[in-house]
Amino acid sequence: MKINTDLLPSGPYEGVVVLIDVLRTCTVAPLLLDRGVAELALTPSLRSAKEAAQAGALLIGERQGVPPEGFNHGNSPVQLANAEVAGRSVVMVSENAPRWLSVTAGGSDLLLGSLYNAAAVADAVVALAPARVDLVAAGFAGEPDLDDVVCAALIANLIQQRVPDVTLLGATRFATTLARSMPDPLEGLWRSVAGQYLRSIDLEGDVAFAARVSTSSSVPRLQRILQAEPEPLYYFSAANS
Amino acid sequence: MKINTDLLPSGPYEGVVVLIDVLRTCTVAPLLLDRGVAELALTPSLRSAKEAAQAGALLIGERQGVPPEGFNHGNSPVQLANAEVAGRSVVMVSENAPRWLSVTAGGSDLLLGSLYNAAAVADAVVALAPARVDLVAAGFAGEPDLDDVVCAALIANLIQQRVPDVTLLGATRFATTLARSMPDPLEGLWRSVAGQYLRSIDLEGDVAFAARVSTSSSVPRLQRILQAEPEPLYYFSAANS
Repeated sequence: MKINTDLLPSGPYEGVVVLIDVLRTCTVAPLLLDRGVAELALTPSLRSAKEAAQAGALLIGERQGVPPEGFNHGNSPVQLANAEVAGRSVVMVSENAPRWLSVTAGGSDLLLGSLYNAAAVADAVVALAPARVDLVAAGFAGEPDLDDVVCAALIANLIQQRVPDVTLLGATRFATTLARSMPDPLEGLWRSVAGQYLRSIDLEGDVAFAARVSTSSSVPRLQRILQAEPEPLYYFSAANS
Repeated sequence: MKINTDLLPSGPYEGVVVLIDVLRTCTVAPLLLDRGVAELALTPSLRSAKEAAQAGALLIGERQGVPPEGFNHGNSPVQLANAEVAGRSVVMVSENAPRWLSVTAGGSDLLLGSLYNAAAVADAVVALAPARVDLVAAGFAGEPDLDDVVCAALIANLIQQRVPDVTLLGATRFATTLARSMPDPLEGLWRSVAGQYLRSIDLEGDVAFAARVSTSSSVPRLQRILQAEPEPLYYFSAANS
């Protein structure tokens, strides 16, 4: 299997793609599936989210660390770990989501990965048995960020442990060698720009939560895209359910 | 001053550009200027280099770690540290050099930077007092590599110590936060793909040499481009002489 790593999305990709956004979308997404969410939609647009909520969905999102008016929860995994969401449809607003448009354009198998579900993602990739997997770090504000690179390295290493014969492409070796200097991935999260931002708004608990490696067994997988105004909704369910 | 960092060349750039190729071109170049080389040309082409040598230039270059026939020296800074080069014209073949074409297209001030001349490069940038400086990591085989990123971080930090008011753009924060996990930059060089390659051909001494921080006071600066077949020659002299 060929394992390619991109430090930022540069699709469209074909085949199996793991989108990595550790702080916090791709940590929250498997957590919500673990907690029994029936259907999870991501969108960059507050307006598209609110429209979907009229059909009964719970709304999750933040602006500057606070849920906007009409939203049920913020994006904090610490807070969502106890939220009543089982059986509900949930729409989460993620500001990074516009970058996923290019990623998903190729009709690929899109999985969401983080430290939190890293082993499950590696298992899911191996089960799909593609000739090539693209590990795509979402980055922060259009630039590479440490949290996602450290996670890409971990997932690449986990896949290598499961597949006898791999070829490392792109920034995979850069990521894995970098990660060797951070035996505790929390260090990468703590120092990342996204982590510094969360710490600056007193959400360091979310950084620590996102460093819980391979805690979740859920792998969010893109099922369908609903065209809505002004932005589409991307619907995920568990790849391994 | 705005400090931008690119993990790979993506020019053309305008203004002041520091091209960083730690292992080994940008370590060797200031070393040669320190040792009194009159004129230093870089080219990706063995053929262009040989033609220039007919006018009396010394030839420096390697293929798989060995100087090709007709070459005076390899690219090893350990070996070049004792070579008789004072007053000579030197042509060095660098396989990474083709990527510099895009970097230099904008008529910019192009400096060569490495750990070896990091403080001198920071001084030279401050003396030029540009509104923006681009720190451009050369990478290895078209991908980002740790040695150059660690060096970009160091140079960014040194500039910040000299200039009261800076804005960090691009991958600068990524690089500086990454480097904080490697207090000894030798670690970044040792783990880099370029460093692994040099170790695999028994040139680990070159890796250690390249980790000597701010040893050289020479800053190679692009003076002119000589159009030759099949590839141009890029002539450098000391910016600060």
